[in-house]
Amino acid sequence: MIRALVWGENVHEQDDAEVARLYPHGMHGCIAAGLGEDAGIQARTATLQEPEHGLTQDVLDATDVLVWWGHVAHDRVDAAVVERVHARVLDGMGLIVLHSGHFSRIFKRLMGTACSLGRWREDGERERLWAVDPSHPIVQGVGECIELPQAEMYGEPFAVPKPDDVVFVSAFEGGEAFRSGLTYQRGAGRIFYFRPGHETFPIYHDATIRRVLKNAVKWSGWRDVSHR
Amino acid sequence: MIRALVWGENVHEQDDAEVARLYPHGMHGCIAAGLGEDAGIQARTATLQEPEHGLTQDVLDATDVLVWWGHVAHDRVDAAVVERVHARVLDGMGLIVLHSGHFSRIFKRLMGTACSLGRWREDGERERLWAVDPSHPIVQGVGECIELPQAEMYGEPFAVPKPDDVVFVSAFEGGEAFRSGLTYQRGAGRIFYFRPGHETFPIYHDATIRRVLKNAVKWSGWRDVSHR
Amino acid sequence: MIRALVWGENVHEQDDAEVARLYPHGMHGCIAAGLGEDAGIQARTATLQEPEHGLTQDVLDATDVLVWWGHVAHDRVDAAVVERVHARVLDGMGLIVLHSGHFSRIFKRLMGTACSLGRWREDGERERLWAVDPSHPIVQGVGECIELPQAEMYGEPFAVPKPDDVVFVSAFEGGEAFRSGLTYQRGAGRIFYFRPGHETFPIYHDATIRRVLKNAVKWSGWRDVSHR
Amino acid sequence: MIRALVWGENVHEQDDAEVARLYPHGMHGCIAAGLGEDAGIQARTATLQEPEHGLTQDVLDATDVLVWWGHVAHDRVDAAVVERVHARVLDGMGLIVLHSGHFSRIFKRLMGTACSLGRWREDGERERLWAVDPSHPIVQGVGECIELPQAEMYGEPFAVPKPDDVVFVSAFEGGEAFRSGLTYQRGAGRIFYFRPGHETFPIYHDATIRRVLKNAVKWSGWRDVSHR
Repeated sequence: MIRALVWGENVHEQDDAEVARLYPHGMHGCIAAGLGEDAGIQARTATLQEPEHGLTQDVLDATDVLVWWGHVAHDRVDAAVVERVHARVLDGMGLIVLHSGHFSRIFKRLMGTACSLGRWREDGERERLWAVDPSHPIVQGVGECIELPQAEMYGEPFAVPKPDDVVFVSAFEGGEAFRSGLTYQRGAGRIFYFRPGHETFPIYHDATIRRVLKNAVKWSGWRDVSHR
Repeated sequence: MIRALVWGENVHEQDDAEVARLYPHGMHGCIAAGLGEDAGIQARTATLQEPEHGLTQDVLDATDVLVWWGHVAHDRVDAAVVERVHARVLDGMGLIVLHSGHFSRIFKRLMGTACSLGRWREDGERERLWAVDPSHPIVQGVGECIELPQAEMYGEPFAVPKPDDVVFVSAFEGGEAFRSGLTYQRGAGRIFYFRPGHETFPIYHDATIRRVLKNAVKWSGWRDVSHR
Repeated sequence: MIRALVWGENVHEQDDAEVARLYPHGMHGCIAAGLGEDAGIQARTATLQEPEHGLTQDVLDATDVLVWWGHVAHDRVDAAVVERVHARVLDGMGLIVLHSGHFSRIFKRLMGTACSLGRWREDGERERLWAVDPSHPIVQGVGECIELPQAEMYGEPFAVPKPDDVVFVSAFEGGEAFRSGLTYQRGAGRIFYFRPGHETFPIYHDATIRRVLKNAVKWSGWRDVSHR
Repeated sequence: MIRALVWGENVHEQDDAEVARLYPHGMHGCIAAGLGEDAGIQARTATLQEPEHGLTQDVLDATDVLVWWGHVAHDRVDAAVVERVHARVLDGMGLIVLHSGHFSRIFKRLMGTACSLGRWREDGERERLWAVDPSHPIVQGVGECIELPQAEMYGEPFAVPKPDDVVFVSAFEGGEAFRSGLTYQRGAGRIFYFRPGHETFPIYHDATIRRVLKNAVKWSGWRDVSHR
């Protein structure tokens, strides 16, 4: 049983009625529900507003994979908590960073680069994510292409280190391309960055996106599945 | 002075009036003319129809970078010539493989994989190539995006080994994405695969495409520019 | 249950009394016995001398991971069999190449390079293999260093493509270093090259070496263990 | 002309008579003198004790490649200076990190990992550095092996991200191995970590070590040599 913890910034859900309607239990709640569809994953949640953002040492020690969603409140995440999460990743905890989490303190801390985008656009345009390597554990059961009818566009250059694996490459309706699924190992921790996930598109209700997230949790929390 | 040799299959140019009109000196001739715009590059040509396809040991020994264009006649390239080119690449000759050359014997020999495409379509649709790493030698002076108004589409999964560098990622009008510029080192040789280049679109007349090719020749023939 | 097939050249065992004494069931038999210690692995053997070297299409189709040991008879392996094995690796069969197998036709076919060593020496000197990444699936339970009291030395430069992972780095008593455990993905197949294994040192009786091989079989045959 | 800046911690030179004797102009002075042997490199120095450690914005803006030597005073390097250097590396300045600089703030900031060693030992034992890739720009003119009669030992696991290139692998007299020359790109900056360099062995007087450093400066400061 992999113990996943879905961390949500939980700000849009409080401030924006549309987001609250789409995600009545928070984006973190929706993501955790998706993970929980897999009998091998136990998914809990934590949010920015909890003491120590819900990321105490005890909680992290009992977490195999941390899933991170943040957007407008990156600078409200306490530096000491970032260091604690960082240490746990190096120690072997998996980390899945979603969408605007590219600019989170923990992701920038682990990457050592700016982690900025070349461009972005909130036009609700179609995104197609192509699986570059059909044999990768993270794309099993996903098919060769994920089509999202409406997405926020992210464009290159994405200022990250060279990834270990490029898992997905996106093409957007407006003509941009983006490396949308990237893996990194840092210390003993396996990290997956996954692009989709804007707050006002129902991305985390999508069955294929949920399949990717379940796969990614199993891949990054591999110690608890088998010795591989 | 880098000694480049542009090898052309030279079949479409003989069989197809439209190609002959676009490329009166052959695609190889046009590519060589583009390279010759750079005072540091000396560009010659060779074709399939010449004895030993114009790729004798003497010619290869006097070549720093070989540029390869082939499409319909891959199986007419002699196995002994392929082995000779292969040995020269491992020995340090640069190799630039263009477009349909992904299926050439020499590229498959060096990659060890199928080198097949996931899909392709000749619809003359728009392609945008995004420079993933603006600091890469091959994209200097190119800008962040190359737009080709009409191109043949190539789609993932592209069955090649993990590249050393992903230089360009393309988005096509029809919604596909492709890793369009890839580098590999094999032995002492630097290899660049570059996707654009269909025979009935005037790709090799395009100034930006020519800039990429000149950059790539200098990158793969680096020994003759400096010790780097 | 992972179905492993250990392929042995089986020539030294017939020609050399010392090898026959060390490996009364052949090196392949000893390696297969080691793999069979793991309840999750079913290990069979095949040898050069069998029809089609024991590597018919039916046999390969029923094999998840092929382990390869060859040394003096690489050129007696039929080209058609090499192509058949190559296709199965691209299709997803794991491949573990041992020691002098670096010069086998199948390894060279997959790598596309010379696969030569910089130097070697049969002096029975001490080798220490250091696990560069303690979190890699292949080194689980192995400890930080494997010490072999007597080994054949292999030295750099090892003429292979840049590996996906460097798992072990060796230091030899005589002062040489070597990248002794390397992973590659080619097509859907996971490949592991593992350096130790000379015919007159009892390498494959060593419990830690056996642990590495069991780990590697599980890593390269991952589809049959879990979806990861 | 590449503008190199050699930064020295300059503490051992003040505190230890043996170091002062070996390096009367400081280690930084010796390293800069070595670089200055190349007509294409202009080498200056800066030290910890200068205002802002000699690393003002103006100085960094006029620096193409920064060479870093530090050991006992990493924690005396001001955080604001580290951030300034970090930004310049992402912006394209080359960085060469020497020996105990693996634990410097700037290297850890760029790597995002612990950057710790598995073991070390100051016994003055022999080190042999083997060039894994003879065609790499950094090893040109170096030969296949650098032998240092006396060195401090560093052992794996070295807690760094997967490097872009492994340039050197060391074997130590005592039996340890280490990845001794590693390259990384972060943002537009090229980084080279080079292991040799203890303060009481005359490493930076060695002609071959100096050749590596000159090569590395040219490789990481490539923009000023050619467009490659």
